[in-house]
Amino acid sequence: MRNLREKSLFVHQQAKGKLRVDVKVRVENKDDLSVIYSPGVAEPCKVIHANPDLIYEYTMKGNFVAVVSDGSSVLGLGNIGASAAMPVMEGKAALFKAFAGIDAVPLCINTNDPEQIVQTIKLLEPTFGGVNLEDIAAPNCFLIEERLKQELSIPVFHDDQHGTAIVTAAGLTNALKVVQKSLSECKVVINGAGAAGIAIARLLLSMGVGDIILCDSKGAIYENRPYGMNAMKEALAKQTNRGRAQGTLKDVIKGADIFIGVSVAGALTPEMVRSMNDNAIVFALANPVPEIMPDDAKAAGATVVATGRSDLPNQVNNVLAFPGIFKGALQVRASEINEEMKLAAVSAIADLIGPKELTSDYVIPNPFDKRVVEAVADAVARAAIRTGVARSGDVEKEQESAI
Amino acid sequence: MRNLREKSLFVHQQAKGKLRVDVKVRVENKDDLSVIYSPGVAEPCKVIHANPDLIYEYTMKGNFVAVVSDGSSVLGLGNIGASAAMPVMEGKAALFKAFAGIDAVPLCINTNDPEQIVQTIKLLEPTFGGVNLEDIAAPNCFLIEERLKQELSIPVFHDDQHGTAIVTAAGLTNALKVVQKSLSECKVVINGAGAAGIAIARLLLSMGVGDIILCDSKGAIYENRPYGMNAMKEALAKQTNRGRAQGTLKDVIKGADIFIGVSVAGALTPEMVRSMNDNAIVFALANPVPEIMPDDAKAAGATVVATGRSDLPNQVNNVLAFPGIFKGALQVRASEINEEMKLAAVSAIADLIGPKELTSDYVIPNPFDKRVVEAVADAVARAAIRTGVARSGDVEKEQESAI
Repeated sequence: MRNLREKSLFVHQQAKGKLRVDVKVRVENKDDLSVIYSPGVAEPCKVIHANPDLIYEYTMKGNFVAVVSDGSSVLGLGNIGASAAMPVMEGKAALFKAFAGIDAVPLCINTNDPEQIVQTIKLLEPTFGGVNLEDIAAPNCFLIEERLKQELSIPVFHDDQHGTAIVTAAGLTNALKVVQKSLSECKVVINGAGAAGIAIARLLLSMGVGDIILCDSKGAIYENRPYGMNAMKEALAKQTNRGRAQGTLKDVIKGADIFIGVSVAGALTPEMVRSMNDNAIVFALANPVPEIMPDDAKAAGATVVATGRSDLPNQVNNVLAFPGIFKGALQVRASEINEEMKLAAVSAIADLIGPKELTSDYVIPNPFDKRVVEAVADAVARAAIRTGVARSGDVEKEQESAI
Repeated sequence: MRNLREKSLFVHQQAKGKLRVDVKVRVENKDDLSVIYSPGVAEPCKVIHANPDLIYEYTMKGNFVAVVSDGSSVLGLGNIGASAAMPVMEGKAALFKAFAGIDAVPLCINTNDPEQIVQTIKLLEPTFGGVNLEDIAAPNCFLIEERLKQELSIPVFHDDQHGTAIVTAAGLTNALKVVQKSLSECKVVINGAGAAGIAIARLLLSMGVGDIILCDSKGAIYENRPYGMNAMKEALAKQTNRGRAQGTLKDVIKGADIFIGVSVAGALTPEMVRSMNDNAIVFALANPVPEIMPDDAKAAGATVVATGRSDLPNQVNNVLAFPGIFKGALQVRASEINEEMKLAAVSAIADLIGPKELTSDYVIPNPFDKRVVEAVADAVARAAIRTGVARSGDVEKEQESAI
C-alpha cells in the first residue's frame, strides 16, 4: 500500500490534477476570433434565445456533466469537506471521459446544507446536460437527489446509490443463474443502511425479490423500530422484513440466500455464512477490505462471492454502470434517469456474460470490457424512449432502430 | 455579415460547442484506476484535508477558472438569460485556453438576483482557482464583484469592467505619447456609464487624469444630478466633472482632449470632434459599429482613433488583458487582482510598442502578438508579490528574479 500511496501522490502532483479543458475549434487569427467570439458568437446566442432547446445543438451542454459533492462522505474518509474531495471528483470526471467520452468537471460545494446544495445545482442547470451526485452522506443524499429530480429537467443520478445498486443487481442476476435460484424466492440480507444499502434494497424490491432484511450498525431494521431510524429506513421497513425479525446480523442471516455487505471489513464471519441457505451468494463490498474474504466465504459454503476489489474475481465496480447510463441518457436528452432505465442497465450488464461463459467466478463483466458502455447506453436510451422521457430530435431514429 | 452568421452557426453546430474536457493521466487498466481513483485517490484527499493549501499541488484548481454569467447583458443583445449566454461563456473559456493555457469552463447561472449569484459562486470556491465575471448588467455587476472580492480568497475579475479599462488605458498611454500630452493635463469625456465606462473612469482617476466628464444617455453626470443616478454614478460624480458641467455630450465635449465611447453606433458626430481640443484622441469602442468611423473622426481633426473592431487599426480587445492577468495571478496564487496589478497590466501592454514603432495607427498591440500574454502575466505576478497578495511557494523564486 505504501507504493500505491507514493505513486498516487506522485501522479497527482506531477500532472497537477487529472483534467484539462481543451478547445474544439480553431483560434488562430482574427477571423477565427470573429467566428467563435464577438461578433459571430451572437448568432448561436440569438438562436438559443429564440428556441432554448437548441442549446443542445450549439453548445457543449448536451455532453457536459457536473460531478457534484459536498465532501461529506468521501471514500472511507468521512466528512473531509469540499476541498479535500476534489481529487475524487476530478477522478470521477476522468472516468466519465475515459469510459464514455463525456465531458465532466468537478463541482465541490462548500456546504453540507441540503437546501444550499439543491439551490446551487438548480441555478447551474442551464450549463450542464446532467448531474452526477457523489460522496454525499446519507440521509442528505436522498433528500438532495429527490428534490433535484423533481425540480430539474436534466438527468440527476447519485452514483453511490444507484451505480452500486445497478452493478450489484446485475451481478446477482447472473449469480442466481449459477445457483439456479429465482430472486422471487430468495431471502436477502443487506448489511449497511447508508446510500448504497438503501438503493440496493429499493432496486431489488422493484425486481421482485422474495424478502429483504436490512441491517444497520444497530441490527435488523423493522417497522417502528424505536431507535436509529430515519425517513428512508422507516419507508423501507414497511416494504421489507416481513417477519419483523429483530436482532443482530448474526441472528437474521440464518437461512438467507443472499448476503450483500456495504458496511465494514470483517462484518461477516464464516460462522454466519455457514448459517445461510445452501448455495449462498455473498457480495462483500466493503472497500478496501471486504466483509469477508472470498476464500473464507467459499470455505464456509458460499457458492458465488463478489467484492469491490480489482484484484479479486467478480468486482462490483460502478464504472460498469454510470458511464453508459449517462451516455444513453444524454444521447436521447432524457429528462431523468428513471427506474426502467436503471433496470435496463442491470439487464444490459448481466447479459454481456453468455450462458456458456458464466461461472461462479465470472458473474460480473470486467470493468475494462469495451462492450459494456455501448450495451448500457443503448439499453438506457431505449428505455428512456419507451418511457417517454427522451426529448432528442434523434428519438425517431432511435425508435426505428429499436423496433 | 450574412456569411459570418452562417459560418458561426455552422462552426458551433458542427463541433457542438467549443470546449471539451480531457484526461491528463493514464486510464488504461486496473492499476491506473487504483492510482487515479479508489483506493489510491484517497492519498491526495488526506494530504489536502491535513493541509488545505496543497489543493493547488494535487488538483486542477490552480489553473481552473470559472467564466460566470447570468446572461443579463450579453454582447449587444441585452438580458437574453443564462442559457442563451452559453456560447459566449464557452467562447470566453476557449480564449482563456488558447491565449494563456488556462482551463476554464462556463458557469451560466439561472438568476439575476445578485445575492443568489454571490452565494452560488461562494459555495463553489473550493473548486476554482479564479472567477471571471462576464456580461452581467450594471449596476449588479459592481455589487457582485465587490462582495466576491471581499468574501473569496481567490481572484475575481469582471472583464467587461477591468479588461476593457486596462486595454483602453494602455492604448491611451501610447496615444498620449503620439500627441505629446500628459494624462494629468487632459480633459476626458466618457460616453456610456455602464460597467465599462465606470471602470475606465476609475482606472483613469487612479492614473492621475486631469478631469473626466462621464455621460450617460441623459447627458453629463454631475454630483446630485436629480435623475438617472445609481450608487456607482453618484460615487464617481464626486471625483469627476469638477466644473459640474451639465448638458448633452455635444455640450460637454467642447475642448476635451480625449473621447472614450462605450455607448452606441454613431453617438459621436464629426461636428463634436471638431469642437474638441487640438490633437484629439477618439476611442470609439461601440461594437460592432463604433460611435464614429475612424476616417470620419480623422477628417474632423482627431489624431489617434481606436475602435473595438478587428478590421480597423488600434483594436481595443480584452484578449490583450484577461489571459495574462489571470495567468500572472494564478502563477503566484494571488488572493485578488488589485489596482496595482491592473496598472501593471496597463504598462506591460503599452510598453510592448517601442518609441520607434509607435504611430497614430499603432498604439495598441495586435491581439495575436505572442509577447502580450507573457509580458502581462509577468508584470501582474510581480505586482501581486510587491503588494503582498501572492501566496505561492514560488513567490521567493519570483521575487529573486524580480530584483
